[in-house]
Amino acid sequence: MKKLPPIDAVAILGVGLLGGSIGLALRRAGFAGSIVGVGRRQESIDAALEAGAVDRGLLDPADGVAGAGLVVLATPIGAFPRLMTAIAPALGRRTLVTDVGSTKRQVVRWAARLLPDPSRFVGAHPIAGSDQRGPQYARADLFDAACCVLTPSPPRAASGSSRVRGSDYARSVETIDRFWRSLGLWTTRMTPAAHDRALAEVSHLPHAVAAALMRITSAATQDVSGPGFVDVTRIAGGDPELWRDIFSTNRDAVLAAVKKLGRELERFAALLESADPEPLRRWLAAAQKARHAMIDRKYKRDFFEG
Amino acid sequence: MKKLPPIDAVAILGVGLLGGSIGLALRRAGFAGSIVGVGRRQESIDAALEAGAVDRGLLDPADGVAGAGLVVLATPIGAFPRLMTAIAPALGRRTLVTDVGSTKRQVVRWAARLLPDPSRFVGAHPIAGSDQRGPQYARADLFDAACCVLTPSPPRAASGSSRVRGSDYARSVETIDRFWRSLGLWTTRMTPAAHDRALAEVSHLPHAVAAALMRITSAATQDVSGPGFVDVTRIAGGDPELWRDIFSTNRDAVLAAVKKLGRELERFAALLESADPEPLRRWLAAAQKARHAMIDRKYKRDFFEG
Repeated sequence: MKKLPPIDAVAILGVGLLGGSIGLALRRAGFAGSIVGVGRRQESIDAALEAGAVDRGLLDPADGVAGAGLVVLATPIGAFPRLMTAIAPALGRRTLVTDVGSTKRQVVRWAARLLPDPSRFVGAHPIAGSDQRGPQYARADLFDAACCVLTPSPPRAASGSSRVRGSDYARSVETIDRFWRSLGLWTTRMTPAAHDRALAEVSHLPHAVAAALMRITSAATQDVSGPGFVDVTRIAGGDPELWRDIFSTNRDAVLAAVKKLGRELERFAALLESADPEPLRRWLAAAQKARHAMIDRKYKRDFFEG
Repeated sequence: MKKLPPIDAVAILGVGLLGGSIGLALRRAGFAGSIVGVGRRQESIDAALEAGAVDRGLLDPADGVAGAGLVVLATPIGAFPRLMTAIAPALGRRTLVTDVGSTKRQVVRWAARLLPDPSRFVGAHPIAGSDQRGPQYARADLFDAACCVLTPSPPRAASGSSRVRGSDYARSVETIDRFWRSLGLWTTRMTPAAHDRALAEVSHLPHAVAAALMRITSAATQDVSGPGFVDVTRIAGGDPELWRDIFSTNRDAVLAAVKKLGRELERFAALLESADPEPLRRWLAAAQKARHAMIDRKYKRDFFEG
């Protein structure tokens, strides 16, 4: 059993797959406080209540965060500015705020501008989920052995007591770290910029490639595809609005990743055109080796953390 | 129960995942004749025997095809020229030959050159499998509801009775079509060139992309990846020798597919750089729609054929 953070009441803004799973995982961890869910539509709230993911469901974000010790922004990032603005006047003086956003630089900037006390905000990205949406797909084990990247961004000391605020921030980070771990994730810390560069390569670029593969192939061609193509393109089934927002809040890093892939595919094409098959075999063998090593590391992690 | 082809004995050259699964699926279909497996190593043969995939296992291809009504080349395509040369003198006058090769133009050319009677050869590509290898992974249901592309290539009438040879070839195609359907696959027919173009887009290009994604990312970056990256890169775990041969027997089509993807990613980059988010959303939405439609078609197929 993971140790729970010292918090009485949690408010989850957004009760979809992630928000609902957060509620279920929190209960599974033995959390005995109240879990309030805020949704944009009554149906989502009802589904989250039905799934047992939240105790109470509300439509108004400010009402939802009243009395909460921890607030989790669990909507698509496009809604964050509106939500941060809405909850700002209602947040308690010591209420912590974290999020599930897939990009972090822009989210941290929004928090610094819109939240009353940025030293209470610690950005997070639990790297789990699926192309399914909605609280009806929520699962208590969605996060098990998944990675959660925390992107602590100590607010710049405004005036005076910067040392006090620094240790204060370290405590916020520790509590939020423990919160995510209690849901089954393992945590790691990165700067928002390093997070955005890494995720551009392992999430945003692959999404763009999957979408591009669906776009360049005809239906007749897709119909003679096998399980490989189904796997490669799975993420292209993701929500276009959500992904538009992810891409547009990580533009430069995604463009750099697209260029990097383009250069690697040019290298592949050059090897393919050459008469000597050995360098192509080596190019493929290195990729195979890296894939096996990655899966071994993930399983090992699963074994030790899961 | 699918109707079995009118054949008494089948020889499977190559008793790995595909060859082993062919034997198991054939038995499941109620095939009562003999199934001979030919392997390069005694261990593979023993494993295929142990799995019940073949009745008899041999190391020599010519011995293996003696008395067979149907021969299936189920090794990586790199071994086809050697195998065709080896079995040519031992093939019966009416023995049919088919294969599992992932590219078809080169295979058809080899068959025309190396087999004694090319009108007995009908190329096939059962689009199933996994990144696992070896008869120990063989499954009777590996091919269920999967697609098998047949690439009939009527041999050019040599001298005289071209009409007789034409109807003869049609019968060969019909029998081999029925053979593949009896294993659980649905069949479709394409020219070798059309097959190679289609597979370049839905199989060979995705493989190159998956390998490139593994190559351009560091281990630390891979470790913060989620299930999407694991799915996208799964095929990069495939065997480098096998894939080198697939690529080098489909060079021009793969290069064209790489270029096509490059152009689509340039389009994506241009949309991402633009200030208007709507065209990017539409680009993503079309991909999502195509993905959902493809999966619906595959499920429907599964429902009706499976």
